[in-house]
This record gives sequence, structure tokens and C-alpha cells, in this order.
Amino acid sequence: MSRFWNPLVASLHPYIPGEQPQFLDILKLNTNELPYGPSPAALTAMREGCEDSLRLYPDPTAKTLREVIAQTYDTSIDRVFVGNGSDEVLGHAFRALISPESPMLFADVSYGFYPVYCGLFDQPYQEIPLNARFEIDVEDYAIPCGGIAIANPNANTGHAIPLEAISRLASMQPDRTIIIDEAYVDFGAQSAIRLTEEHDNLLVVQTLSKSRALAGLRVGYAIGHPDLIEGLVRVKDSFNSYPLSRLAQTGAAAAIADDKWLTQTTRQVMATRERFVQNLAGLGFDILPSCANFVLVHHPAHQAGDLLAGLRERHIIVRQLSAPRIRDWLRITIGTDAEMSRLIGALASMGLTTR
Amino acid sequence: MSRFWNPLVASLHPYIPGEQPQFLDILKLNTNELPYGPSPAALTAMREGCEDSLRLYPDPTAKTLREVIAQTYDTSIDRVFVGNGSDEVLGHAFRALISPESPMLFADVSYGFYPVYCGLFDQPYQEIPLNARFEIDVEDYAIPCGGIAIANPNANTGHAIPLEAISRLASMQPDRTIIIDEAYVDFGAQSAIRLTEEHDNLLVVQTLSKSRALAGLRVGYAIGHPDLIEGLVRVKDSFNSYPLSRLAQTGAAAAIADDKWLTQTTRQVMATRERFVQNLAGLGFDILPSCANFVLVHHPAHQAGDLLAGLRERHIIVRQLSAPRIRDWLRITIGTDAEMSRLIGALASMGLTTR
Repeated sequence: MSRFWNPLVASLHPYIPGEQPQFLDILKLNTNELPYGPSPAALTAMREGCEDSLRLYPDPTAKTLREVIAQTYDTSIDRVFVGNGSDEVLGHAFRALISPESPMLFADVSYGFYPVYCGLFDQPYQEIPLNARFEIDVEDYAIPCGGIAIANPNANTGHAIPLEAISRLASMQPDRTIIIDEAYVDFGAQSAIRLTEEHDNLLVVQTLSKSRALAGLRVGYAIGHPDLIEGLVRVKDSFNSYPLSRLAQTGAAAAIADDKWLTQTTRQVMATRERFVQNLAGLGFDILPSCANFVLVHHPAHQAGDLLAGLRERHIIVRQLSAPRIRDWLRITIGTDAEMSRLIGALASMGLTTR
Repeated sequence: MSRFWNPLVASLHPYIPGEQPQFLDILKLNTNELPYGPSPAALTAMREGCEDSLRLYPDPTAKTLREVIAQTYDTSIDRVFVGNGSDEVLGHAFRALISPESPMLFADVSYGFYPVYCGLFDQPYQEIPLNARFEIDVEDYAIPCGGIAIANPNANTGHAIPLEAISRLASMQPDRTIIIDEAYVDFGAQSAIRLTEEHDNLLVVQTLSKSRALAGLRVGYAIGHPDLIEGLVRVKDSFNSYPLSRLAQTGAAAAIADDKWLTQTTRQVMATRERFVQNLAGLGFDILPSCANFVLVHHPAHQAGDLLAGLRERHIIVRQLSAPRIRDWLRITIGTDAEMSRLIGALASMGLTTR
């Protein structure tokens, strides 16, 4: 506590970033990064962007990048918003497009930032329990609310809901914004982007940090009705008017245009995921069916904390989450085949044996 | 107005970005960018950073960058904060380190964002008039207040105050944070960074957008007592936890380490400024003495609006500001010698003749 802090700061309990382990041979399977690099075309475009024009301010409206996104998803530029990572985009959406008069709804097991944003913006919220199979059932969201956020596939479980369910939800809540957070959509789920043309209350949020392998660049975007986009722009320009850097705009545009690289790398991750799930099942794990680049797993004979510690001793980092219902589960990012074999080998060396 | 906007958004009057003129031969002297490119070492470092590691999240604490800043300014890493441009750093400082019980103080002619931030954070403020020579007199700031922001050199006038005056101000207000905004310090003023070791209430903010020629990268930083830095970190981690991208951290570190390039390019700008001021004086302009990479000028026989329009017809963009006392002045960024000759030629062609 310093005499220079105002009352606001003194009252804050800030987020403490996780430890960054410094082992040389560390295998990091805890933050759902892609094991393959970004689009080579994006790397080339950014390299070419490292020149004298960096002396100039970036376009605050990111027009070229938004045009590329609009073309890629066959929509128009006034339906596209971009931000510094999808976290920023989600933050703006929670601040701009949710009614504070009723609780916002999201699943009890989902992306951990949803309740954090609600706390920040004094937005009441209600967590809707996943069903017994850890799935979202959209019928549970047909209640009065201030808005809805659904991660599809769901964060931490990997479960995806079909477009038909999203469409039904949008029709059940015509006057509330429904945020579809598609951070993991490219690993086997269907995007709701085309539904935003029919439903003016659907906002689809995507990121370049997962399937596009650009977590280090910090770019996310939203697609939806121009009224929703204008709400995001108003909040951004008033509270947080920090444009994307020139390199972020350049790299993101080239990465989004490179559909071939996306398809190739995400297919590889999905194939590895299927093999890895087989191997885990062979070691006696329960594994939730996943459409994401991670799996949520549980072992009937071993506590998650023990497995976490044992893997850590072997320099493999996976993630234990805090939501009560999954506290005895581990979330494991899908890496390369070789990386997943190393993990299986480590588990075997810890006494988990193949059946 | 959309039914999906909550009351907050409906009440906002967002900033509308300025026109981006699209002439091919445009000479842009309106936003104080450096006419020379960034450090070649920084460009090389960023090019090398355009590789597979971009798939990984950046270090949220930007430790390496902060170490380079600490080394460069002979201080310690716990006295260094970094953000997405100095605008973000200033925003956090206004939110964290100013007391809301009394008005914050800044000059009536200074950086236009100061009153905007106060509005955003419900911070009362009082504008202290510059003296008749458009200079800041620190004795005017020896009144009860919630904190102080001084741009040194001052935004829009270019006037610099000596370190002795800043030290005196810090001693006069021992319980209030004094933000010294040094966006333009490298063009002829003295940095107060070393004073932050003696005065725990001084926060010095710098940017890479002007003298380091990296406006396109969006990096700024603050140096001050660890208590002040912790206040900034708390606000950042709670409200706006968006880390610098990997390329921003890499490029900024290399640019800050390249003192030679900084010295060379800023000397060139200062030499051009002196020649340009001579030429302007020859055309009958009044010119405020400037320690920045711009000059504020006024012509007794021509209105600023007319000059602006005439230059615009000739595809030269300079800046007219809104602060009442300088409404009939123009702010002109210092470009290369050739660019400033083009501007002088344009003024001559508009009927302003050399005496």
C-alpha cells in the first residue's frame, strides 16, 4: 500500500500471472497453443512489414485487416470488429452489449474470464450447470437474462454444440446478445458466423491465438450485425482506444487469408488428438469427447494433483482448473505426435500401465 | 441506437478518428512521426522474431524488455512499467495514482488526452494557464491538488522546463504523484528519469512513437518508484490485462538499446528544425522556441485556417489544435530538410514572401 495509490487501486486484487517454468526441455501442454508455427505467408508478410513505415501510426480502424476478414467469411466490413486478442474483444462485448438489469448466463464450466469481466463491469451473472455429460444444453438458457456467452467448443471440456442449437437459442432470446466464443472452433466444430446474417443478436468471437498459431501477436475479432459492431467500437473508442500495431494488422490479415495452412495444421492436431485419446484410454483414463485442441481427462485411480506433480517432475506441464466440478480433471493441450508420445511415456513411467 | 446496447454505450460520445487523406504525394506533418525509420537493429530483431515462436503467448510481464529499459536508464526492473503505447501507460497512471479528492492539475495548452482521461475516470481537474510566453511556470502548481501531469517538452508548444524546476515541483507536492510525460524529450530537453531516484512521487512516461520512430508498434513505458509501478501493474492486471505482443517486446528492446541511432536521427531532426525556423521567420511567422520535433507557429497577417487549407490544396497536412489559446496557431512536424523545403516553397506559392 502506497500513499500515492488512490482508493480504487488499494481495493484491487490483481491477477497474478502463472509461473513460467524455465526447464530447457520443458513440454508446455497447459495453454492450448498450436504445436506448429503460424502461416509461412503471415511470417513473410510480417518480415516485409519490419521496415521504415513502422515510424507511422497504424490505421486505427484496421480497415485492410477487417476487409480480409470480411472476404474470408463472405460478409461485409461493417460486420467486423478487431481487437488486441479475443480477450479484449470479449471484454468490450461484456461491457457494451449485455443488459445489467438481469443476470448474464454462461456455463459453470467454461472460460474463466467470463465471471472476471462481469465482476469488472458490475454485471450480475448466473452460472448454468453443464449436464451430467459435461455438455451445454441450450434449453437451459431459455430464461430471462441480460445476455449469454457460450464457448463453442466449450473451454476446458471441448464439447461442441451444433449450429441448429445456436440458431434455436438465438430465436429463444431475440432481445439479448448471445456471444459465441469460437476460440477453438477450427478443431472440429462448426462456426456460427453464417448464422449472424439471420440473427441480429449473435456475436461470434474468434482469436488468432489457437488455430492460427499467433498467440504471440495478440489479435482477435468479432463478427455480427453492424449494430453490435458499433456498440463495440463505441466502447473501444471511449475506454481503450489502443489500435492494433502495424505488424499485428499485417500478420493477422495474411494469416486469415491462408486457409490452406489452417486446414493442414488443424487436421494434423485433430489426427494427433484421436491417437492420443486412444492411448490415454489404454491407460485407464476417462476422456471427454473434444472438438478442441485439448482434452479434459480424469483417472479413476489417480488424483489429478498427483498426476500434475508427477508430470511436472518429468518437465511436462499440463493444467488443473479451478471450477469445482472439474477439479479432479486435467486439461492437456494437443501437441505433436512426438510430444504426446512423450507424455504417454511419462504417465507409463509413473506406474499407469497399459491394459 | 440498438436494442442490444446497454445504457453505458448509449451514453457514450466516442472519438471519431481523423480523416486519412489518400493523396499519393501527401506530405504528412500533422502527427509528429519521425521522418527517419526505426533503428536498423530493431528492424532486424523484429524480422528475426517473425518465426514459429509467435505461436506462443508473450511474457505478460515483458521481463526482457523491462530489463533493457532498466539497463539503458541505469535503474532497476522494479522501477519500470511497459504498456501498449504511452497512451495506455498514461491512462493507467491517471486511473491508479491520482487522488480523486482534489482536482488534478495540468496546463491549459498540453496533451489533449489529459482531460479525456479525467472524464473517463471521474477525476476532477483544473487547467493551469501557461504564462504569456506559453510556458509552464511550476510555481503555479504549488496549490492543493490530486496530482499533476506535465508534458516536458510541452505538447503542442514545444517548451521545455529545466530539471531544477521539476525537482522543486516534486518537493512542493511530496504527497502527490507528478507525471512527467516525456514523449518529446529526446529532441532537446532533459529527462527527469534520474530525479525519480530522489523523488518517490515522480513518474516519468516515455514512448517509442516519436524519437524511436516506432509509432506503428505501440509501445510506451514509465519509470518511477516501485510503489508507483506496482499501482500501475495493479490497474493493468485488473482492467486491461493485455500484454505487449512478442514482436513489440522484441522490437522495443532492440530500439531502446540502440542509442547511437537515436542520437543520430534526433540530431538530424534538431538541425532541420533550426533551419526551418529560420526560413519560417523569414516569411514573417512567429515561432515558439521548441525542444520537440514540431514547432507551433502563427502568422500575423494570415489566419491559421487559411494556411491549413492552402497547404492542404498542395497536399501538405499540418495540424490546427482546439485549445482556445492556440486556435490561430499551426503545429508543424519536423520532417526531412527536403520536406521542410517543400513546405516553405508551398507557403511562398501562397503569397507569403521572404522579407
